[in-house]
Amino acid sequence: MNDPAAFVRTALDDLRAKVPGNAIVAASGGIDSTTAAVLAERALGDRARAVFVDTGLLRAGEVERVGAFFRASHLAYDVADASDRFFATLAGITDPEEKRRRIGTAFIRLFEEEAARHGADRLIQGTIAPDWIESGGALRDTIKTHHNVGGVPKDSKLTLVEPLRDLYKDEVRAVARQLGIPEPDRQPFPGPGLAVRVNGPVTPERVRRARVANDVVESEIERAVAAGEIARPWQYFAVLLDARTVGVLGDNRIHGEAVSVRVVESVDAMTATAMAMPRAVLTRIAERITRQLSGEVVRVLYDITDKPPGTIEWE
Amino acid sequence: MNDPAAFVRTALDDLRAKVPGNAIVAASGGIDSTTAAVLAERALGDRARAVFVDTGLLRAGEVERVGAFFRASHLAYDVADASDRFFATLAGITDPEEKRRRIGTAFIRLFEEEAARHGADRLIQGTIAPDWIESGGALRDTIKTHHNVGGVPKDSKLTLVEPLRDLYKDEVRAVARQLGIPEPDRQPFPGPGLAVRVNGPVTPERVRRARVANDVVESEIERAVAAGEIARPWQYFAVLLDARTVGVLGDNRIHGEAVSVRVVESVDAMTATAMAMPRAVLTRIAERITRQLSGEVVRVLYDITDKPPGTIEWE
Repeated sequence: MNDPAAFVRTALDDLRAKVPGNAIVAASGGIDSTTAAVLAERALGDRARAVFVDTGLLRAGEVERVGAFFRASHLAYDVADASDRFFATLAGITDPEEKRRRIGTAFIRLFEEEAARHGADRLIQGTIAPDWIESGGALRDTIKTHHNVGGVPKDSKLTLVEPLRDLYKDEVRAVARQLGIPEPDRQPFPGPGLAVRVNGPVTPERVRRARVANDVVESEIERAVAAGEIARPWQYFAVLLDARTVGVLGDNRIHGEAVSVRVVESVDAMTATAMAMPRAVLTRIAERITRQLSGEVVRVLYDITDKPPGTIEWE
Repeated sequence: MNDPAAFVRTALDDLRAKVPGNAIVAASGGIDSTTAAVLAERALGDRARAVFVDTGLLRAGEVERVGAFFRASHLAYDVADASDRFFATLAGITDPEEKRRRIGTAFIRLFEEEAARHGADRLIQGTIAPDWIESGGALRDTIKTHHNVGGVPKDSKLTLVEPLRDLYKDEVRAVARQLGIPEPDRQPFPGPGLAVRVNGPVTPERVRRARVANDVVESEIERAVAAGEIARPWQYFAVLLDARTVGVLGDNRIHGEAVSVRVVESVDAMTATAMAMPRAVLTRIAERITRQLSGEVVRVLYDITDKPPGTIEWE
């Protein structure tokens, strides 16, 4: 794709051809799905409706931040509050693939319900080329499974439409600029949300801990970048581990949980390097996490594994 | 204690008074118990017998290294091979306190059997002051539980004798020098061995992984110290975590285990600081662990928690 304006014209025609009736757009707040949603709204007007799902697995302030991003992109949207059903379907599940499968199913059922409410028979998604080219390889594919073809069960009445299917990330950014979509102010966030940042059982309590830890990592990394202590990493986040460990609280020994901090450099996510981090930044992160989650998280670890042999995400 | 020579004279008299018959000495290979064992042999001759237990939970080369240390200390000793019974008693146990309790019981039962073989009714241990003063506080106390008063059950026929009970570490070192015991060439190793470096289930397979990881950490840290890259840390080791994670092997995604690397600076173990580590050293450690345990361990983490709020050991 060399000409974003030409791509937009073709994409709008294509969407009008492929969506004879109404459509909903799976809008995660990322640049891909937001671009798809804006294209859909331009092509279809009120016949397309962007749906943002509050899974209960979102980052701190995510609903507000995504809402602001959609408004800046002049995109109308609905928020579907579905945290109860996500926590219910994840209760007692620890296997990562089973977690993903259940999250994917919950997304699809929810989109089916939203589609029924809107009288829609098309589901528009922001799938881009690396999502299906890398299939089975990098984690982002599996993460996006619920937004891809594989994620729509055979019995679904929804037909998938993917206007960005042939684009790469930099091309999507060019199209987004063409559409007047601003740069999102946060790094991409995986579809299954904090569920893949919670190793082991996914409970509201453990998701809350992962949310606090991720908020600390994001704000401290962004502070370190702003202060020139480190270059901007490719990705940075925290994972609540499914492993109990011993800590000290006052004069007592306590059992608590551990958090792994991941900060990687990469050019394409196919390979990645654990970033060399100044001790001062790591210390601030460890101190804030253990203080804000005092008595709950007693240990913080920094992931020093490159990809390969590790992946970027934990599970 | 100001005069090691005077302390030795008093200790020898004291041992002769407290051990009318035969005794065995719980000899772990550490400086404390080796000093107690040499004192016992000087005081009691053949009536005292040092017993080193091969729990199956030892570090790589530990039996050989401890044997060389005992020989250099002119100490006669027996090796009790008990790996089968230690793995049997730990099968299916994941709770750290229950692990320790079972290891403590296995030690005591084994010493009772060894005592019966030697016609002994006294068990001599290298307990030092911080072991019982810090009781319930730092981890080393709990680690040493099986060598302390608390570890001998009421129904045991063994009477405990602790010749170093009032000494601190530097005083023990002075006494050891007085007795001609050389400096041990490795850092102290916890009594429960690799069992506390294996978070979760303790199986021969997982202990093998922890052994490889610990061997890598010890050799790389010692190499970095020798090369002047870092100062000599207080303690350094690896823990195999009870958490599964995703990795990449060739073209495939695999599930594997994760290892946490701990390197701390401390003056007294009551507080500790996670050492600032050069990225090159961490990279060598992560690469060697994931290469030597390829397909088994896919992720390596560096523990950045100070004590408090973390402890030095994981569990």
